[in-house]
Amino acid sequence: MKRIAILGSTGSIGTSALSVADAHPDRIRVVALAAGRRVEELAAQVARYRPAIVGIANDVDRPALASAAASAGTTLVAGPDGLVAVATHPDVDIVLCASSGTSALEAVLAAIDAGKTIALANKEVLVMAGALVTERARARGVALLPVDSEHNAIHQCVHGRRPDEIRRLILTASGGPFRTWPAAKLYDVTPEDALRHPTWRMGPKITIDSATLMNKGLEVIEAHWLFDVPADRIDVVVHPQSIVHSMVELTDGSTIAQLGVTDMRLPIQYAFSYPERWPSSLPALDFARLGPLEFLAPDLDRFPCLRLAYDALRAGGTAAVVLNAANEVAVESFLEGRLPFPGIARVIEDTLAAHDVQDAQTLGDVRSADRWGRERAKMLAGGLKLKA
Amino acid sequence: MKRIAILGSTGSIGTSALSVADAHPDRIRVVALAAGRRVEELAAQVARYRPAIVGIANDVDRPALASAAASAGTTLVAGPDGLVAVATHPDVDIVLCASSGTSALEAVLAAIDAGKTIALANKEVLVMAGALVTERARARGVALLPVDSEHNAIHQCVHGRRPDEIRRLILTASGGPFRTWPAAKLYDVTPEDALRHPTWRMGPKITIDSATLMNKGLEVIEAHWLFDVPADRIDVVVHPQSIVHSMVELTDGSTIAQLGVTDMRLPIQYAFSYPERWPSSLPALDFARLGPLEFLAPDLDRFPCLRLAYDALRAGGTAAVVLNAANEVAVESFLEGRLPFPGIARVIEDTLAAHDVQDAQTLGDVRSADRWGRERAKMLAGGLKLKA
Repeated sequence: MKRIAILGSTGSIGTSALSVADAHPDRIRVVALAAGRRVEELAAQVARYRPAIVGIANDVDRPALASAAASAGTTLVAGPDGLVAVATHPDVDIVLCASSGTSALEAVLAAIDAGKTIALANKEVLVMAGALVTERARARGVALLPVDSEHNAIHQCVHGRRPDEIRRLILTASGGPFRTWPAAKLYDVTPEDALRHPTWRMGPKITIDSATLMNKGLEVIEAHWLFDVPADRIDVVVHPQSIVHSMVELTDGSTIAQLGVTDMRLPIQYAFSYPERWPSSLPALDFARLGPLEFLAPDLDRFPCLRLAYDALRAGGTAAVVLNAANEVAVESFLEGRLPFPGIARVIEDTLAAHDVQDAQTLGDVRSADRWGRERAKMLAGGLKLKA
Repeated sequence: MKRIAILGSTGSIGTSALSVADAHPDRIRVVALAAGRRVEELAAQVARYRPAIVGIANDVDRPALASAAASAGTTLVAGPDGLVAVATHPDVDIVLCASSGTSALEAVLAAIDAGKTIALANKEVLVMAGALVTERARARGVALLPVDSEHNAIHQCVHGRRPDEIRRLILTASGGPFRTWPAAKLYDVTPEDALRHPTWRMGPKITIDSATLMNKGLEVIEAHWLFDVPADRIDVVVHPQSIVHSMVELTDGSTIAQLGVTDMRLPIQYAFSYPERWPSSLPALDFARLGPLEFLAPDLDRFPCLRLAYDALRAGGTAAVVLNAANEVAVESFLEGRLPFPGIARVIEDTLAAHDVQDAQTLGDVRSADRWGRERAKMLAGGLKLKA
């Protein structure tokens, strides 16, 4: 029996994780839940799963959960300390970190210290604090299992192989909805256009990141930390069909790939079941009905965010923190109609150019670079807006 | 240092194996060689590699090798007993069985009994005597490493996974040169047409087998024995580009694939290096330059040989022996212009229909079914010729 905590249980990954739990009542027990703002959904989850503990982001939402928690015999906590309590609850074996943004960073570090297995669906944790988190996990002997479909694919491809067999990681990218658009037309992109992802259904922030290829850039950084492979040995290839989830090139020139339907329940279940693999009733691929699979080089001129992520990874230290912070600000400005689509990369590039890279050894270093990046990006986004 | 014997050292796989040995002088020593008819090439190999022992199929060819063997200090043997001596030489760690046909069967069984690792590039050994060979290898604790690109791919995909994770093996097939030809036109196929394989360069027998899809049928039977998976869980999918060498569907619906350039040195080196993986200078795939990868269902009406192979595997016992024997006779008749292309399947089908399936527990059972199949197929091929 795997006893799980879900940080971000009302989001897209969180609800998929609960449906994996529903499919395996004999193998998974939902022990702890936490969410940000969707209080009603969280209350319904508490009533249904009767976890030992539930956490909500803001104290003000406590009353709305009180009755559900009381009926279920569930301990109710709130705020950042509450999130840590959820992630470190003694009954928990695996913490699925599926909350977006940086709020879960402290909770993940606390869970590592408490010896929990970490199933990681949140990009920011590794992009911002990759050195910190992986070092802590290694020291504590804790497994970091990736839930992102690309890293999960790579985990499956490298499983059973020695590190010295790995020559190159190849992350696949759908290329987003503007893959074939000419550069000039990208200025006309509306938030509605960008929110229409060709192959995966996801939240708005990650969908925009997919459209700019920043999502893939963040994944390159994550892959570096998860698999201890330098930037020069991580490639991105555009694969519009999203059937091959990622690949690994081995030292003899052979390539191992993981393929599957685009359903997040697959990588979530893998992370919950690892090192075992449980059966699932999800459909397998039907190759005779599959259309052709294409692979193309990404266009870094039209989609400079990917190049910026490589630059930040190579620069090291706080550069990736600032990249991520500037990207969050820029995407928000774009979604609010205050920045044109190509302005996202522009804001990030200018923020990075102004940044004096520091070590990112402590959570304090990370938090302060994050604040600096957000402030600078807001300034720059405001400036671009005035120019437009 | 891996010390290897190559049975069939002058053939296509044999010479590729020697070029793998050339690329890894620090890792591979060529200790034993054997060939069938290409005596001059074999003499040159003896002079170059100075093996401990060399075997030639026919006594009459001894004199042509005597001087090269003497200069190299190599023991010279001939005939079936000689082949056994090559395969069981005490200095040998790995026996690469790359001779075509059934001549190597006794030598492979003897090598297994002598505790040698077997790298298997010969289809007939498993198609004819799969039960015998795999049982003997299991009892003796000897590894059977597949060199066929498809089975080698599957070996790489299942490596590190437990048998109960495997739901289905998916063998890819190029589809051969007549993949898109209408059924009626197949009567016009000449041996020259059939010898033009779209993606792999191989010997004539296996090239014709690729054109009829019998090659894939024999591979289904081999896969059954190598991976202990029943016929119903082995699929064939046509993949004209021959980039994905084969795949494995796992119990959760995920698929693992092995991809690479079409160069037999890759699987040969894998078998020599296993369980390690050595670097190679062979080119890796360049996904950005790769065209689309297609997957299609095989057409069992136009290519009934594949269906016949499944039937023979399901029938068990001597059925696969007779399938293989009839196929060899029919392909020879076709290559000599005495049988139309669709007649190959017809001869096999009629031979199988006339066969009374027996147990294939001993080499005697196998040899006698093989003789019966050849005789019956010759009769039937002669009959079809008269009708044509």
